[in-house]
Amino acid sequence: MALRSFFRTKLGFSGLLPRLSPCSSHGRVCVSQQRNSSTAPKIKVDFDQNTGVAVMHMQSPPVNSLSLDFLTELAISVEKLEIDKGCRGLIITSNQPKVFSAGLDILEMYGKSPERCGEFWKAVQEMWLKVYCSNMVTIAAINGSSPAGGCLLAMTCDYRIMADNPRFTIGLNETQLGIVAPFWFKDTMINTVGHRNTELALQLGLLYSPSEALKVGLVDQLVPEDQVLTTAVKTMTKWLAIPEHARQITKSMMRKPTMDKLKSNREADIQNFVSFITKDSIQKSLHMYMEMLKRKKA
Amino acid sequence: MALRSFFRTKLGFSGLLPRLSPCSSHGRVCVSQQRNSSTAPKIKVDFDQNTGVAVMHMQSPPVNSLSLDFLTELAISVEKLEIDKGCRGLIITSNQPKVFSAGLDILEMYGKSPERCGEFWKAVQEMWLKVYCSNMVTIAAINGSSPAGGCLLAMTCDYRIMADNPRFTIGLNETQLGIVAPFWFKDTMINTVGHRNTELALQLGLLYSPSEALKVGLVDQLVPEDQVLTTAVKTMTKWLAIPEHARQITKSMMRKPTMDKLKSNREADIQNFVSFITKDSIQKSLHMYMEMLKRKKA
Amino acid sequence: MALRSFFRTKLGFSGLLPRLSPCSSHGRVCVSQQRNSSTAPKIKVDFDQNTGVAVMHMQSPPVNSLSLDFLTELAISVEKLEIDKGCRGLIITSNQPKVFSAGLDILEMYGKSPERCGEFWKAVQEMWLKVYCSNMVTIAAINGSSPAGGCLLAMTCDYRIMADNPRFTIGLNETQLGIVAPFWFKDTMINTVGHRNTELALQLGLLYSPSEALKVGLVDQLVPEDQVLTTAVKTMTKWLAIPEHARQITKSMMRKPTMDKLKSNREADIQNFVSFITKDSIQKSLHMYMEMLKRKKA
Repeated sequence: MALRSFFRTKLGFSGLLPRLSPCSSHGRVCVSQQRNSSTAPKIKVDFDQNTGVAVMHMQSPPVNSLSLDFLTELAISVEKLEIDKGCRGLIITSNQPKVFSAGLDILEMYGKSPERCGEFWKAVQEMWLKVYCSNMVTIAAINGSSPAGGCLLAMTCDYRIMADNPRFTIGLNETQLGIVAPFWFKDTMINTVGHRNTELALQLGLLYSPSEALKVGLVDQLVPEDQVLTTAVKTMTKWLAIPEHARQITKSMMRKPTMDKLKSNREADIQNFVSFITKDSIQKSLHMYMEMLKRKKA
Repeated sequence: MALRSFFRTKLGFSGLLPRLSPCSSHGRVCVSQQRNSSTAPKIKVDFDQNTGVAVMHMQSPPVNSLSLDFLTELAISVEKLEIDKGCRGLIITSNQPKVFSAGLDILEMYGKSPERCGEFWKAVQEMWLKVYCSNMVTIAAINGSSPAGGCLLAMTCDYRIMADNPRFTIGLNETQLGIVAPFWFKDTMINTVGHRNTELALQLGLLYSPSEALKVGLVDQLVPEDQVLTTAVKTMTKWLAIPEHARQITKSMMRKPTMDKLKSNREADIQNFVSFITKDSIQKSLHMYMEMLKRKKA
Repeated sequence: MALRSFFRTKLGFSGLLPRLSPCSSHGRVCVSQQRNSSTAPKIKVDFDQNTGVAVMHMQSPPVNSLSLDFLTELAISVEKLEIDKGCRGLIITSNQPKVFSAGLDILEMYGKSPERCGEFWKAVQEMWLKVYCSNMVTIAAINGSSPAGGCLLAMTCDYRIMADNPRFTIGLNETQLGIVAPFWFKDTMINTVGHRNTELALQLGLLYSPSEALKVGLVDQLVPEDQVLTTAVKTMTKWLAIPEHARQITKSMMRKPTMDKLKSNREADIQNFVSFITKDSIQKSLHMYMEMLKRKKA
């Protein structure tokens, strides 16, 4: 089964990455106007005080790429809700068509200074640390494709509901792009689908169809596309009926060891990422990949 | 699937707990005469010297609650059999209708002194330590519901055969009662059903139907209700055909690391339990739960 | 399911072990002429420079037992291919009918000096260390039964394709012979099929049919007997399409912790094996087992 999904889309999110305009200069590529300007909010939060549930809509066109700006906004939003004692549940979903999140923004990794790359990576870590052990119940309402960092964001939640559309895919497909999922992506995936599935998924950079993802345990439930959010809301009601203090302690017991591994290796993990991503060979791979995307558009 | 079972019975073993009489005084609740007096044996052991197999019948009415007395008797019984070189296999089952064991006796956790709570918890640890790495082959013949500590006892065995009666449930549902399964309950469950299933099961306090329990790997086999014990006896014959010394070393290799974690943290685990369970808020939760049970009876 | 396979063949590879001639003397058993002389190559390597794929045919009659000579030849072959930068993929298969490999050669463990036993065990470790973290993509084309060490060799690869012949079996059945799979066999199996499946498999010495092995995850794919090798070649093409550097780093991240456990305990593991296998009781077991095989032949 695993290999079938591998062939379906060699470069799974080729159609999902930020649309590149030809305004590149000095070896950098910038995004077209179709992308949000950095001042427009990339995240919209609807918080219902009656239910204690916040719905976080990712709305960074075209594909909710996890840029430094986006990650910073996301981390601030989560922190605000975490502090608000009235907020007990968080649903993360997308306002963009056909995609939950396309994952880490390649533009943040290409042609950037080591300092900037380090800053970016720290923000990726921050997002995961904030969500993975949140005291809130977190549910991913995956209403579109969710490769790489998008899959990480989904796995970081307590429960995953995905749209049953066979054109959507989900998975940590970093290897396909010539880059490597770091140890805490790996740990999060092992905690979700076990060691052997993770080994296959990461070595091959597998992207799963919704039904494959359900079978392997990468998502918990499939529903028709237009019922993803409503199902998430219903599911949240059930989770919030559990005595809260006991649930939070239990969640922490399950997840804290994995979180502590990153916390005690954070700086080394940043250094590791920076020295890898700034290598000539890796930069060349990213360049070729972006050129391919541009040709596809042309 | 997991969420379906959650809704089936919000407080899974509500009908299984010790029947409470209205003789409570000074904030304590005592049990009615329907409960065994502390002098009657709560465990009956049938040991067949020809086969080397002992069957331990739990017979503490009404629901084999794991009280301090019960746990002490169980630990002594297991130890006696362990020392007897003629005894190579142990089957644990229930003589009470519809229930294997309802788990830890709430009366041991409510309105008790810290010292007494600590003594109780030490006995819970002792039961697990004695059975989890027993040199004997251990089979749970689960002929009724098995919530919380009852599920732990079943998971502590080498093999689990459950009655295929959809009215029975099994699971670590502590969270539903506002309490928390300790790390070694969690470790035992991870070793049985994996990390992700444990995360869902413990956060939601899930009680599984027999068929769900089989699917998730919480039990190994389902048989009609009247064949649970006979199947356990047949299965034991197969296990006892394995060269014994090699099997014992193999079992120890699989389970010792998990056991050592508790052994080296036993005192801290007791302190942790005592300080948690004696909290006002937790005592209040237990009180409300017991009141609800009493109202149900009335 | 697990128990069914246990009963199928109490001593799974009884028909697969080296055919013993009656030339035993001084308590030793030697092999008949049907076995390869030690000078004939026990391994044939076909390396296709165009594809970068080497196929390693095990051809040590009758059943590819892992003798010291065989293991040494295997380790040297793998090392040569590893050094050759043109070789990127390795397929391991058997040229013997009906068997992939019957596992460790019992003759290397019976009636041998502690020094020789230690030398043998070091070679077993060496094989695993060389293959488990190989930079090459490794695929086991399992075209026959694969008990004990044969199963280890298969699990050591990245991917396992097995012939869908219900007469073939695969599993770590050491316990059935009264011996014990060491911790790194266990770790390799846990990484493949999870903790609970490993516990059952190792305690009972289970041999799985191909369909059972697929269900439990011990193999990844079943194909008709005559398509095992061609499927392996096709599958290899897919794996080699993954960016190589990223795949290698990912593989190392998944497997290195398991490998490091043996590396830092290698000498103790050898001592452990030697002191166990040279025990009178174990030697007696092996003797009885070999006598049984001889009677079967007679």
